[in-house]
Amino acid sequence: MKFCSECGSPVRQGIPEGDDHVRHICDTCGSIHYHNPKVIAGCIPVWGDRILLCKRAIDPRKGFWTLPAGFMEQGETLSQAARREALEEANINVEIDDLYTLFSLPQISQVYVFFRARMVEERFFPGLESLETRLFREDEIPWEDIAFETVRRSLEHFLLDRKNGEFLLRLEDISPERWRTHG
Amino acid sequence: MKFCSECGSPVRQGIPEGDDHVRHICDTCGSIHYHNPKVIAGCIPVWGDRILLCKRAIDPRKGFWTLPAGFMEQGETLSQAARREALEEANINVEIDDLYTLFSLPQISQVYVFFRARMVEERFFPGLESLETRLFREDEIPWEDIAFETVRRSLEHFLLDRKNGEFLLRLEDISPERWRTHG
Repeated sequence: MKFCSECGSPVRQGIPEGDDHVRHICDTCGSIHYHNPKVIAGCIPVWGDRILLCKRAIDPRKGFWTLPAGFMEQGETLSQAARREALEEANINVEIDDLYTLFSLPQISQVYVFFRARMVEERFFPGLESLETRLFREDEIPWEDIAFETVRRSLEHFLLDRKNGEFLLRLEDISPERWRTHG
Repeated sequence: MKFCSECGSPVRQGIPEGDDHVRHICDTCGSIHYHNPKVIAGCIPVWGDRILLCKRAIDPRKGFWTLPAGFMEQGETLSQAARREALEEANINVEIDDLYTLFSLPQISQVYVFFRARMVEERFFPGLESLETRLFREDEIPWEDIAFETVRRSLEHFLLDRKNGEFLLRLEDISPERWRTHG
């Protein structure tokens, strides 16, 4: 941020009175501008024993496989955001089940939230942000080509929990060197 | 947002190519500005069988009681944010336990996240944003003067689950007319 979004004057960085974080401050109109972490919502869409993944058509990690997920928009609930992303990226309708994994990625100021989900029909095709969509059995999952650590961990937890017959919520922090997986 | 935060030119609202949401667009420098929901992180700080609440010194809901909670900052994890807010609002050190409640408030584009937490010593006093801090037994909780619906529900769930001996994660959506409690 270089200019005030309220009045267009240049902003400076400083700690406002009564605050303890550096903010962008406009000395012309008095606005203080706050920047906060963003939420990425997604799901693990399942059809029978297979999981739907999308090959990314956009950076970051273009060409790598991901679960459908994306930035939560204003006016949405978490599950609405997860449902919308599944529709946008893979053209699938899903029933959203339990909240399943939550990841904090403090270095990029993001919070990832994945739900378990069931596809309502075996019908899917790539949205604008996907090159390819495909259902994978456990032994087919392209572990070497998974886009993000959040996705890899969500898949690992899911497959393990499915085997054990009980899905456990996971809350984890991901360190900077790990957020993209290294295939 | 009226002006571009990158170049200071006036922005217009429109749907960028390949997008399906209205954004603030700068035709001068080409920036597209995204606004996303904010995360509020907090905790239910417990000392023995009592729960710590803070009387708000600031609007909204000045003078009403709340659990320590506030906007997650850049560079934090969810639990770090909850811990920091407990320290800022009540000057307490807490051990953060399990994630406990999550609320989507789509009308104000917020996501609330509360953890269960244990105070490490019986020492507390109001921070700048609190008028008063106090430990409440179950029968002392000021239900008529609770600041927010997210806080009321978190307390209700907590007291019920404590009685039942098992704490269950709650994921709920809160409708607009309910987000402030009506005492």
